[in-house]
Amino acid sequence: MDLDIAVLAIGDELLNGELADTNTAAIGQLLNARGYRLRESRAVPDEEPAIVAALRELAGRHEVVAVTGGLGPTRDDLTARAAAQAFGRPLVLNDEALALIRAFFRDQGLEMEPRNEKQALLPQKCTVLPNPLGTAPGFLLREGRCRLLFFPGVPVEMQAMAEIELLPRLEALSGGQPPQCERMLKIFGLSEPRIESLLAGLTMPEGVRVGFGVDFPLVHLKLRARGEDAEERLDQAEVITQRRLGEFIVARGRETLAQTVARLLTASGLSLSLAESCTGGLVAAWLTDIPGASAFLDRGAVTYSNQAKNDWLGVSKRILHEQGAVSETCARAMATGLRQSTRTDLCVAITGIAGPDGGTEEKPVGTVFIALSANDAEQAKGYRFSGTREQIRKLSACMALEWIRRYLIERGRPKT
Amino acid sequence: MDLDIAVLAIGDELLNGELADTNTAAIGQLLNARGYRLRESRAVPDEEPAIVAALRELAGRHEVVAVTGGLGPTRDDLTARAAAQAFGRPLVLNDEALALIRAFFRDQGLEMEPRNEKQALLPQKCTVLPNPLGTAPGFLLREGRCRLLFFPGVPVEMQAMAEIELLPRLEALSGGQPPQCERMLKIFGLSEPRIESLLAGLTMPEGVRVGFGVDFPLVHLKLRARGEDAEERLDQAEVITQRRLGEFIVARGRETLAQTVARLLTASGLSLSLAESCTGGLVAAWLTDIPGASAFLDRGAVTYSNQAKNDWLGVSKRILHEQGAVSETCARAMATGLRQSTRTDLCVAITGIAGPDGGTEEKPVGTVFIALSANDAEQAKGYRFSGTREQIRKLSACMALEWIRRYLIERGRPKT
Repeated sequence: MDLDIAVLAIGDELLNGELADTNTAAIGQLLNARGYRLRESRAVPDEEPAIVAALRELAGRHEVVAVTGGLGPTRDDLTARAAAQAFGRPLVLNDEALALIRAFFRDQGLEMEPRNEKQALLPQKCTVLPNPLGTAPGFLLREGRCRLLFFPGVPVEMQAMAEIELLPRLEALSGGQPPQCERMLKIFGLSEPRIESLLAGLTMPEGVRVGFGVDFPLVHLKLRARGEDAEERLDQAEVITQRRLGEFIVARGRETLAQTVARLLTASGLSLSLAESCTGGLVAAWLTDIPGASAFLDRGAVTYSNQAKNDWLGVSKRILHEQGAVSETCARAMATGLRQSTRTDLCVAITGIAGPDGGTEEKPVGTVFIALSANDAEQAKGYRFSGTREQIRKLSACMALEWIRRYLIERGRPKT
Repeated sequence: MDLDIAVLAIGDELLNGELADTNTAAIGQLLNARGYRLRESRAVPDEEPAIVAALRELAGRHEVVAVTGGLGPTRDDLTARAAAQAFGRPLVLNDEALALIRAFFRDQGLEMEPRNEKQALLPQKCTVLPNPLGTAPGFLLREGRCRLLFFPGVPVEMQAMAEIELLPRLEALSGGQPPQCERMLKIFGLSEPRIESLLAGLTMPEGVRVGFGVDFPLVHLKLRARGEDAEERLDQAEVITQRRLGEFIVARGRETLAQTVARLLTASGLSLSLAESCTGGLVAAWLTDIPGASAFLDRGAVTYSNQAKNDWLGVSKRILHEQGAVSETCARAMATGLRQSTRTDLCVAITGIAGPDGGTEEKPVGTVFIALSANDAEQAKGYRFSGTREQIRKLSACMALEWIRRYLIERGRPKT
């Protein structure tokens, strides 16, 4: 009983390049985790005829349509009007919605702007969906065999409402039976064709399908199955895959590489310091995005100038002068110097040329050195990455995290 | 002569929550900058019937369809096969495409995996579109009055090919006349309804329309016009808006707040140091994402531990003990301490509680202090932000950048 679900995202900003549509991805992730699947997503601009046409088409084709955006207080927020138009209902001032909007402003101790009243103009005979985080209430319409749920476009509001309002309704509609299960393995250091080659000879349990995705620089490997014992067959498939790809699997499920590393660091009880040059704080920013990073992160140094490398990391002027800031010797000195001065258990250093300028014949753009220092280990290595500045920075930051991950696994294989 | 353009993005990963569809946004941005407009975008999974149906529908409705994804070498890459199926053409081994793939591997000094040959199986009578950055060539089909251009899903490859292959064809089709012009103003510190209220009384030049978008925590204000003298009317509209919103406009066009700040810093010749606690390197990561950041950035300190604040920023143990690390006094000490020890011209410090834990009654989650130190200025201020950890960190980092921007403007109004 595979529910047929679609998303309609409304907003000029999704089509003119201002914003990527992260709401569809967020809904897809929520659904996927519960075994539901999005069949289609569309984006249309803030234009009533386009919204009306898309609503009618999607309502005619799918059982559930999640609509995001266009519920705000300004003139280009047209979704409620378009929904009324699409399904031949009058637009009426909804008392329940108005009360919710008033209450929101009261609770925040704010004065309600008159234009926010517009957000209570909804199609007749809809069910109001409260918005716990913002002014725009959502609403639900039944149209033939289709249920359309309208959510605001602000991502945090949309997400909260989708969890509260969408998921329980899907569960009721599908009789509580998730139609598909999925396992996600995130791989770093192997290309997609290389992974497919490595897996080609393996016999997977019956009905388990393999899919791929890319989230640069990681490859996402998806194992999928349907039916009663899907979870058990996926367990087996995961073991088989793990045996072949081994340590190239750097994270699983919704966990990111940074989250995996943060979890391993927390479990290890080790303290960490970071010395970043070309990545400019990216590793620190990724790790501190995770709640609880203060448990392991002592500090990070973004040392762009040579003076900073000398002051904070103790890199000698001789090394900087003779080998240069982008060298294996310098990376090693950065890591050992910072670890010693901070008395942290573990330090990782990154120095390189992210480009687009600054490359030389001997050290072209993409030349990156990484070093790790711990009381029982000291490693340094050079890489030649290719790509844009952003890609080289991301690849360098992921590689630094991967060094930490492998060190922690080697060190004592803490429970993952 | 407004061309009717749509995007079809293909890939399970766009619907199951793994990835947000950034390709549509990238194409939207390319088109928008040239005055073209995307009328619709769709995403469908890696399933042949879904791809076939979407291709037929879109080809019947639009003049140009840009298709992304599904050209890779693996089994779930089905786009070429689906295109052949959709328009009743056989799938043939395209010699031109095969030669391009072979040449790509040769140029990279790599061996071609046998499965990459699959990428040369294309619908009969298509035009091959070379891929300068990857193995998957694209292709173009004419079907009735519609031109369909197929690009790989890897963002850098797609983007390079869209610039080379899509834009010149659009220009030819539309006779060189951009159908709409747009100006984008990025606003920080005013809500969308507040901006609409402020602009409500103004008389805009004829035919200039105002639109809104949100890229948290910024609001994007878009001024749009069509026709012969569109650029002049937009110039006037921009002056009118600037007069009303003034310094709340923090960036224009494709420039981000960080890019604006980097440009102003470079022009000022001042050196910068950063002391980040709750933002954990986010400001440094944003600024160093910009080529040439080494011209102004001396260093950044991610000082999570109190010891780090003491060592590197010279914050006294007394302040840390009596006022706490999250206090105006501490922020001020961080900024002045780092500026003095590094002899940089400008230092900004951020300390706060990003949550979700760590808040107290007196200092709840969202309490953030920012301080700026320069030889002619010293400021510090506390904020109470609300939102998720990610939002509080972003808001704090934007506010820090905004402090730098306002300081540089006050200081001597360098040419923006």
